[in-house]
Amino acid sequence: MVKTIFVINPNSTQAVTDAFDEALNALRLPGGPKIECLTLAEGPPGIQSQMDVEQVTLPLVNLVKGLDAKHGAGAGAYVLACFSDPGLHAVREATTKPVLGISECGALTALTRGHRVGVIAILRQSIPRHGRMFGAMGLTERVVAEVPLGMNVVDLVDAERTRAGLLRAGKALRDEHLIDVVVLGCAGMAAHRAWLEEQLGVPVVEPTQAATAMAIGRTLLGW
Amino acid sequence: MVKTIFVINPNSTQAVTDAFDEALNALRLPGGPKIECLTLAEGPPGIQSQMDVEQVTLPLVNLVKGLDAKHGAGAGAYVLACFSDPGLHAVREATTKPVLGISECGALTALTRGHRVGVIAILRQSIPRHGRMFGAMGLTERVVAEVPLGMNVVDLVDAERTRAGLLRAGKALRDEHLIDVVVLGCAGMAAHRAWLEEQLGVPVVEPTQAATAMAIGRTLLGW
Amino acid sequence: MVKTIFVINPNSTQAVTDAFDEALNALRLPGGPKIECLTLAEGPPGIQSQMDVEQVTLPLVNLVKGLDAKHGAGAGAYVLACFSDPGLHAVREATTKPVLGISECGALTALTRGHRVGVIAILRQSIPRHGRMFGAMGLTERVVAEVPLGMNVVDLVDAERTRAGLLRAGKALRDEHLIDVVVLGCAGMAAHRAWLEEQLGVPVVEPTQAATAMAIGRTLLGW
Amino acid sequence: MVKTIFVINPNSTQAVTDAFDEALNALRLPGGPKIECLTLAEGPPGIQSQMDVEQVTLPLVNLVKGLDAKHGAGAGAYVLACFSDPGLHAVREATTKPVLGISECGALTALTRGHRVGVIAILRQSIPRHGRMFGAMGLTERVVAEVPLGMNVVDLVDAERTRAGLLRAGKALRDEHLIDVVVLGCAGMAAHRAWLEEQLGVPVVEPTQAATAMAIGRTLLGW
Amino acid sequence: MVKTIFVINPNSTQAVTDAFDEALNALRLPGGPKIECLTLAEGPPGIQSQMDVEQVTLPLVNLVKGLDAKHGAGAGAYVLACFSDPGLHAVREATTKPVLGISECGALTALTRGHRVGVIAILRQSIPRHGRMFGAMGLTERVVAEVPLGMNVVDLVDAERTRAGLLRAGKALRDEHLIDVVVLGCAGMAAHRAWLEEQLGVPVVEPTQAATAMAIGRTLLGW
Amino acid sequence: MVKTIFVINPNSTQAVTDAFDEALNALRLPGGPKIECLTLAEGPPGIQSQMDVEQVTLPLVNLVKGLDAKHGAGAGAYVLACFSDPGLHAVREATTKPVLGISECGALTALTRGHRVGVIAILRQSIPRHGRMFGAMGLTERVVAEVPLGMNVVDLVDAERTRAGLLRAGKALRDEHLIDVVVLGCAGMAAHRAWLEEQLGVPVVEPTQAATAMAIGRTLLGW
Repeated sequence: MVKTIFVINPNSTQAVTDAFDEALNALRLPGGPKIECLTLAEGPPGIQSQMDVEQVTLPLVNLVKGLDAKHGAGAGAYVLACFSDPGLHAVREATTKPVLGISECGALTALTRGHRVGVIAILRQSIPRHGRMFGAMGLTERVVAEVPLGMNVVDLVDAERTRAGLLRAGKALRDEHLIDVVVLGCAGMAAHRAWLEEQLGVPVVEPTQAATAMAIGRTLLGW
Repeated sequence: MVKTIFVINPNSTQAVTDAFDEALNALRLPGGPKIECLTLAEGPPGIQSQMDVEQVTLPLVNLVKGLDAKHGAGAGAYVLACFSDPGLHAVREATTKPVLGISECGALTALTRGHRVGVIAILRQSIPRHGRMFGAMGLTERVVAEVPLGMNVVDLVDAERTRAGLLRAGKALRDEHLIDVVVLGCAGMAAHRAWLEEQLGVPVVEPTQAATAMAIGRTLLGW
Repeated sequence: MVKTIFVINPNSTQAVTDAFDEALNALRLPGGPKIECLTLAEGPPGIQSQMDVEQVTLPLVNLVKGLDAKHGAGAGAYVLACFSDPGLHAVREATTKPVLGISECGALTALTRGHRVGVIAILRQSIPRHGRMFGAMGLTERVVAEVPLGMNVVDLVDAERTRAGLLRAGKALRDEHLIDVVVLGCAGMAAHRAWLEEQLGVPVVEPTQAATAMAIGRTLLGW
Repeated sequence: MVKTIFVINPNSTQAVTDAFDEALNALRLPGGPKIECLTLAEGPPGIQSQMDVEQVTLPLVNLVKGLDAKHGAGAGAYVLACFSDPGLHAVREATTKPVLGISECGALTALTRGHRVGVIAILRQSIPRHGRMFGAMGLTERVVAEVPLGMNVVDLVDAERTRAGLLRAGKALRDEHLIDVVVLGCAGMAAHRAWLEEQLGVPVVEPTQAATAMAIGRTLLGW
Repeated sequence: MVKTIFVINPNSTQAVTDAFDEALNALRLPGGPKIECLTLAEGPPGIQSQMDVEQVTLPLVNLVKGLDAKHGAGAGAYVLACFSDPGLHAVREATTKPVLGISECGALTALTRGHRVGVIAILRQSIPRHGRMFGAMGLTERVVAEVPLGMNVVDLVDAERTRAGLLRAGKALRDEHLIDVVVLGCAGMAAHRAWLEEQLGVPVVEPTQAATAMAIGRTLLGW
Repeated sequence: MVKTIFVINPNSTQAVTDAFDEALNALRLPGGPKIECLTLAEGPPGIQSQMDVEQVTLPLVNLVKGLDAKHGAGAGAYVLACFSDPGLHAVREATTKPVLGISECGALTALTRGHRVGVIAILRQSIPRHGRMFGAMGLTERVVAEVPLGMNVVDLVDAERTRAGLLRAGKALRDEHLIDVVVLGCAGMAAHRAWLEEQLGVPVVEPTQAATAMAIGRTLLGW
């Protein structure tokens, strides 16, 4: 049976979903798990505060429970595609399938591509929230710097402005903080990974790709 | 104006609220902030899973918003009286008043009473959840051991069984893990602090008292 | 019986004592613990070196022992009001009452007001000493930056120069180190907390207030 | 073009290679990357000392260089299937393809399946070597315990004895160290993952599967 | 000019001084620095509390200042031979010569002889004090366990009882905590290093030897 | 019997060996251990990549084994004089004599000369490699910054350019990162320690001196 990996955008901005959906094409295989991207209808346009995180948590749990009930063994794994990993541990309690957060998997994957990890956040106010997450993950020694774009999630549709910001933040991470691997700290930056990596000359990790990549393996293994 | 500190039990077990309400009498002063204990009607009987945490988060935010709207400057501070600190950071976004979690304040207070901190959890399954919290707080170096009672929140009304469990867990922390300060890892153990401290000969921190104690000062300072 | 919290300035600069004495007015309640501020006569004008720390340690122990003997149960708690927490652990051995250091309590309180904690030191040479303390407390993950004023304790009476320095240091912490909560790293800055918080738009913790606030609760609880 | 993931056993014990080769069947897809398992002819029967690690490092580099030269773009990724991650960082310098170590990926995957990670080592003497690795990875806060089997790599062919040892070590990790996820600390235990997970009632991570799972995604992404 | 390293026993128990004086014979060279062992007359019989630490701090500073004044360039370095490193940082401010603590140097030397470091303390009450020191040194990740003898400093003259205790504590560190290097946590155990190392089959570090060994080099280098 | 400490330069640049050989003169005593400096013929001109590290590892092991066989008890200790500590743990397995790495001993010695440790690397690409080492040592809390010279090992013969670079890097460490002790991150900078210390007004640790200093003591102690 072909299983499906559900990649869920907890915010309601379809352009974000569309962008990572396209970025995930590389992970779609004829005989492999299907990858289906969903947008959480109840979500705010962007997850930019702790309250935004909390407001999508139960809807995410319910969505996953519903998908699990509907698809049974056909549901292979769930990816929560927001860099705040909203509801990650609650969703894990709600299903026996693998559940992966993009913040978590973005950081873990970065650990295999460099030593000093830097993160590009959308907003400065995201940094303490991310700090709590990386602390909970026990990764504080390795995630050594975070620099904000100063852009809202919905503004990321402006590719030109986004790229200018990414380049500025990436250079600050590379040149001032001496990081040697960058993680994009929002699901809405998926279209720019390769471009930024080329510009910076430093590995760049796109977290929704990183998490979905891990989900494929976990789906196949069944654990 | 006399301000009120609202100490909110996120679970619906009134016996838990009653027990810490009584334990907070020592903190009630003629001219000081009022201390009012509330039980979250929507809460489950005990917060014992991440899902329990999530389910009370928005109700807690709404409760605090409502209290804030009703009492205005008369609301001095909020204490979330569950050792999982549910909704702590979301509630902080919802009000300008001080918001304190009992897990957080229990641990911080313990840091001033000993060096190696041990926690008595209700259930083994609480330990990873607490681990994520202490990691987020950056206190992993100091909170060195956690031992479970193996009792549900509602079972804590059985004082005899609870004391037997607390003594067993406390001795394990003291004698095997060499801790020199114990934190009670649930709001429902408030009646037993002094007894356990005497039995163990080691300082014991009751976290709802610890958090409310800090809330008094913060209320008076107004920051 | 009304208990007294003794807040002891280990340096001999009365202007420092006077400034935090006034800052503690907010914590004085009709029915609450009395708060009495003392200046250690034997202290140097400022605690600015490890030797300064050591020289006041035994005098502090003796002062506390004397107060304990004189006031008995009327002595509720002791606050050591110097950011080097001189003699903290020795004084704890000398009395059964709660003993709190302002460095310790300033940092612990900051943990509840933000994630990335920054400290404003008086002198650059204070930073390694503080680093040893924060290391001993196990808070290195959270206290992420420290910036010096470059002013001696006694020079802090020059309010204008002090404010200029605090603003410069606070902006460096906020804008270069991306901290989201500031701790004033000297008891002699107490008059400027509210002003600096307003200027920076970031929470600012005054450590003598923070410690005395915690001492009130501990005095009432009796543990 | 179908790419191949080369999973290299740095020791010369073919039974180890055979066992993980079979365990990797779940990861073989019709349209996915091929997974080819190799045994390093020059390797010792087991990597059980730092010297064993060093002796296979250059042969591994040369093997990878040779495969890279021979297969070009057809070589998708390399997995070093020994829990000491021998030569990991040197091999990364030798190719532009993803290179993953099983110790690294076993630990990283465990971080997504539980909070307190425990490792089952083959020999007690492996534990300091693993400790250096986990320290270099910055994962010391999360990898909280390691228990040895006390068996040589070549002895792992004795399935009955191995399972008895795994069960004993796993129970020690679960019951004494309160871990909630186990990592098998040797590539030669691959046949026993599911069995041990069922016996312990705790997630068990097989590191060669974990690393190859990650390699599939990285191969497809091309970064 | 032949320089002298002054190794100062901060407690007044001459038997402790005599024992490490003899243990330092191996470090005495015809053309090398002289090693002179002193007993602090003002010291208590053993440094067993924080108060004991504080009471010897200024006498140590004064002793070193006096030696410095008397010997000038002939004073090569100072070793503070108590495992609480009393006055270490104050003495460093009082002289430009190298000043080494035995706790510090014992731990640092242990880092070069094994990975997981265990310490044998004299008393259980020493462990929090040592914990604060290792925290200040930033060595908490490596110093993973400490086990007490339960003996006062003066009781260490009873060699038979001391050896029985050392063996019991050493075996607990080796077999329960899986440490691979032991540090003797008191200057009064110097006579038993070789014996314990042979008994345990694990490297044992004698801290006064470790510190004096480092002092020789530093004296010769002049920095 | 006079024992010999062998200080081995793993790179083949004789000028590097010559420079530290001269710097070690201060450690040569009439009756003390002989200090003999060797250049590894098989080494590359500089150890600048992980591959360089690996390529010298087995030659170093073989060299030490040969020296051990030839000199027997006359071989007192081995110092690996490259800041990447190549082969450190393998060489330790190959001999019962003390083996010390200069990165390790440079960092450990720095811990006794200041609190915030900064390192001057030769190349930016060295920083992740060093980061892995300091992580493995568990010293990440104390080694807080590293700044590269941007010079190859062989270019260090240009004293003027080297000093200009050291001064720039040292000032960055001192003024931007607020370090209070500097470690020279390459064996090839030995001639400049005193000069840089004077220029910066901050202690500077030369790691080959630091390691050889520790080796003298260990040789004399015989453990």
